[in-house]
Amino acid sequence: MSKTAITPTRAENFSEWYQNVIVAADLAETSPSAGSMTVKPYGWAIWELMRDELDKRIKAEKVQNVQFPTLIPLEYFNKEAEHVEGFAKECAVVTHHRLKMVDGKLQPDPDSKLTDPYILRPTSETIIGEAMSRWVQSYRDLPLLLNQWTSVFRWEMRPRIFLRTREFFWQEGHNVFATAEEASADAKKMHDVYTKYMRDVLAIDSIVGEKTPEERFAGADHTYTREQIAQDGKALQVGTSHDLGQHFSKSFDIKFLGPDRKLQYAYTTSWGTSSRMMGSVIMIHGDDDGLVLPPSIAPYQVVIIPILPEQNEYARKIEKQFKDAGIRVWLDDSDMRSSDKMWKWIKRGVPIRVEIGEKEVTDNTITLTRRDIGKASKTTVPVKTAHSLIQELLGKMQSDMLVANTAFNKTMITEVKDLAELSKNLEKGKIGFFRLPYKETLAPEFEGLMEKYKISRRCLDEKDPSFVFVAKSY
Amino acid sequence: MSKTAITPTRAENFSEWYQNVIVAADLAETSPSAGSMTVKPYGWAIWELMRDELDKRIKAEKVQNVQFPTLIPLEYFNKEAEHVEGFAKECAVVTHHRLKMVDGKLQPDPDSKLTDPYILRPTSETIIGEAMSRWVQSYRDLPLLLNQWTSVFRWEMRPRIFLRTREFFWQEGHNVFATAEEASADAKKMHDVYTKYMRDVLAIDSIVGEKTPEERFAGADHTYTREQIAQDGKALQVGTSHDLGQHFSKSFDIKFLGPDRKLQYAYTTSWGTSSRMMGSVIMIHGDDDGLVLPPSIAPYQVVIIPILPEQNEYARKIEKQFKDAGIRVWLDDSDMRSSDKMWKWIKRGVPIRVEIGEKEVTDNTITLTRRDIGKASKTTVPVKTAHSLIQELLGKMQSDMLVANTAFNKTMITEVKDLAELSKNLEKGKIGFFRLPYKETLAPEFEGLMEKYKISRRCLDEKDPSFVFVAKSY
Repeated sequence: MSKTAITPTRAENFSEWYQNVIVAADLAETSPSAGSMTVKPYGWAIWELMRDELDKRIKAEKVQNVQFPTLIPLEYFNKEAEHVEGFAKECAVVTHHRLKMVDGKLQPDPDSKLTDPYILRPTSETIIGEAMSRWVQSYRDLPLLLNQWTSVFRWEMRPRIFLRTREFFWQEGHNVFATAEEASADAKKMHDVYTKYMRDVLAIDSIVGEKTPEERFAGADHTYTREQIAQDGKALQVGTSHDLGQHFSKSFDIKFLGPDRKLQYAYTTSWGTSSRMMGSVIMIHGDDDGLVLPPSIAPYQVVIIPILPEQNEYARKIEKQFKDAGIRVWLDDSDMRSSDKMWKWIKRGVPIRVEIGEKEVTDNTITLTRRDIGKASKTTVPVKTAHSLIQELLGKMQSDMLVANTAFNKTMITEVKDLAELSKNLEKGKIGFFRLPYKETLAPEFEGLMEKYKISRRCLDEKDPSFVFVAKSY
Repeated sequence: MSKTAITPTRAENFSEWYQNVIVAADLAETSPSAGSMTVKPYGWAIWELMRDELDKRIKAEKVQNVQFPTLIPLEYFNKEAEHVEGFAKECAVVTHHRLKMVDGKLQPDPDSKLTDPYILRPTSETIIGEAMSRWVQSYRDLPLLLNQWTSVFRWEMRPRIFLRTREFFWQEGHNVFATAEEASADAKKMHDVYTKYMRDVLAIDSIVGEKTPEERFAGADHTYTREQIAQDGKALQVGTSHDLGQHFSKSFDIKFLGPDRKLQYAYTTSWGTSSRMMGSVIMIHGDDDGLVLPPSIAPYQVVIIPILPEQNEYARKIEKQFKDAGIRVWLDDSDMRSSDKMWKWIKRGVPIRVEIGEKEVTDNTITLTRRDIGKASKTTVPVKTAHSLIQELLGKMQSDMLVANTAFNKTMITEVKDLAELSKNLEKGKIGFFRLPYKETLAPEFEGLMEKYKISRRCLDEKDPSFVFVAKSY
């Protein structure tokens, strides 16, 4: 048995393995600003690639980016009691606007106490709703399709990097339509945009479907979700899309004059996904040697490692060849030992590793290894056409990773016919998702199972909504 | 005299004109969340172009993007008393982390009061300093070049959109070096990156130089600035770069082991610019018909306006031709009257307006007008080569706007030999920048002039630092 770069391994302790991959890949760290994270350069570079590609796809749907304030007047939340009940109670509250030096220590200045406190946005439905009530006047103003990329704040008590932190990064889309049909179609369309994006770009296949009424977003008529399956079998909810009907337009008075000259309430949707996707990529693609990045979101798709400084010059020529071909490449000519360099980039999940030793220089070749399948892929190829081969391999790796994830998901879903069978499986420690008739979960005993095993309804099965998926979740 | 699209005109009331251009171009609005702004789709699209181009140039300097938390523990500010004195007293303070329903109204839950309050970042020197003290251990970790794009919060009492709002958008760079020389060179280099970016991209020429000791950033050994001249003669400080010497490394204990095995303090720089650049573009390039955008940052570089719906099909072909040539183009085939469309896009500052009437369709031509010079540039050209001509004109307009700004700046600088002459000029209402020997401003009477005329030292003259520029400022 060869040793692994990450200890403990996934099998030994998945949760610790996750934290250690983040450290080993130098993605982020827990901030001394309690409960928040600092995203380090390598982590942020991955996020920028993820963000920019999703942004492009959102814009292709004719959505326009905007920016609303971070601070939301507390009174706005009073307009939306149900919404607040849902999730907005653990909020950062701004109550003062000045500091004062008292006995050599800075403190909030009592004279600067705000009559009306502000909340750091946990989501922006309320402040965007207020604007929409002014911006939307006529049917000609519709549809209005808006999105913003921002920080969001929820005072989480058990923070975990990328999955649950007091500040995280997301996009939130907010669309307004004249008709219920358009809003309903839009919520499903944005749901599909996410699903396709995650398949194409993150190489992650999701269990998709509608949330049950019990699990729906506060104020939504329909909530569509993507539930991804971590390697420990737990669900990762990554990206939801809500058909809000007239709920928010009524709370915030979003009305328009129709072509019929009648004033009527509009229909809205909202849809969002977040830096949680980073957690998902780690938990789904990572292995016992660390991160494994799909080529689409790898800051460096290829790393070139000269074994000795004598090979640096040859390596530089290859670096140029790859760069010219549009490949994101990094030449590691640092003075670390080549085996240390190798492990460094393995842990960081770089898709293709190119090693150059004396033999490669003599033969005018390079030796390359794919990160996802490792040694099995190790091969030596002529330099001349190496860039085309690399491009081909990157494409192949991207699609292979999706195929692997789809196959993995299949192994993680257990069909059960009723609560008794569900209970039996959970009792014997079976991990993963369970698929069962939704109506079974309406029996009172399900509450007890939820509590005992920390499971919940993840979503209805899109292919047959009389079935529901149940799992533990992050 | 033809009427203008914006009233009042610049000459009548510059400050109101500014607000009205923002409304007429649909860039942003004052948010009901007091003191903040909401940036609307057209405004945010401009900002994204500005941001992405600057980001590219920053990355070309091998700087890596990161993301630090918005919330900074108050105790960090206590470590940096001088820094706080400088500008950090008007801060948003988070004191509670939960809401509670009391008598049907949400309020900060007294039980959630934080022992240690948090400040919404007014700048991130302190929290980044803390991280650097851990990330920097050896000379091999240097230089460490970091940047982040974030919101920042300062509790401004007289907010003005894009110039001074409680929340604004910026990038802040923070670099660490082993030697004083490197830090000093870096502060100047980033200063030059900004200056060049603003010339190339914003078509704005700046008065550049070092801040005098009186005006320097708190904690800096040297502060370099770009002061731009609004059309009313006031200074707009847009982008500063600070050589912080060992000031912050000593406060935050940023030390490294040198090649000589000695532990020593590092040297740091910080440099930032913000959404204030939007204000600068409006105040410098705008005219009495509204916004005028340099082509580089125009979301639509060309707008095509068919006079009648009959010309829509012809217009669509031209739209495609331009798109294929990589021009950012918008076809306005809405059902507004063509003159209304024309004014809409004039106010929004679209660089080139293409009008298509019956005659153009018959002759296979288009009629185009440049936004900056208007009627003088109106010309009818054959469709076949129109895209190349447009590309050429966009380049020409970009450089002409810079030339015009440079010429304008010259008319706005008055040489004065001493305080008496300065005073005489101010007394008779002379606007703009005044250049005089720096030592003159060290006389006690200068304080009185500063107060009376609301002027300040903007910067030393880079060409001859014994001279200083003095002006009113935004």
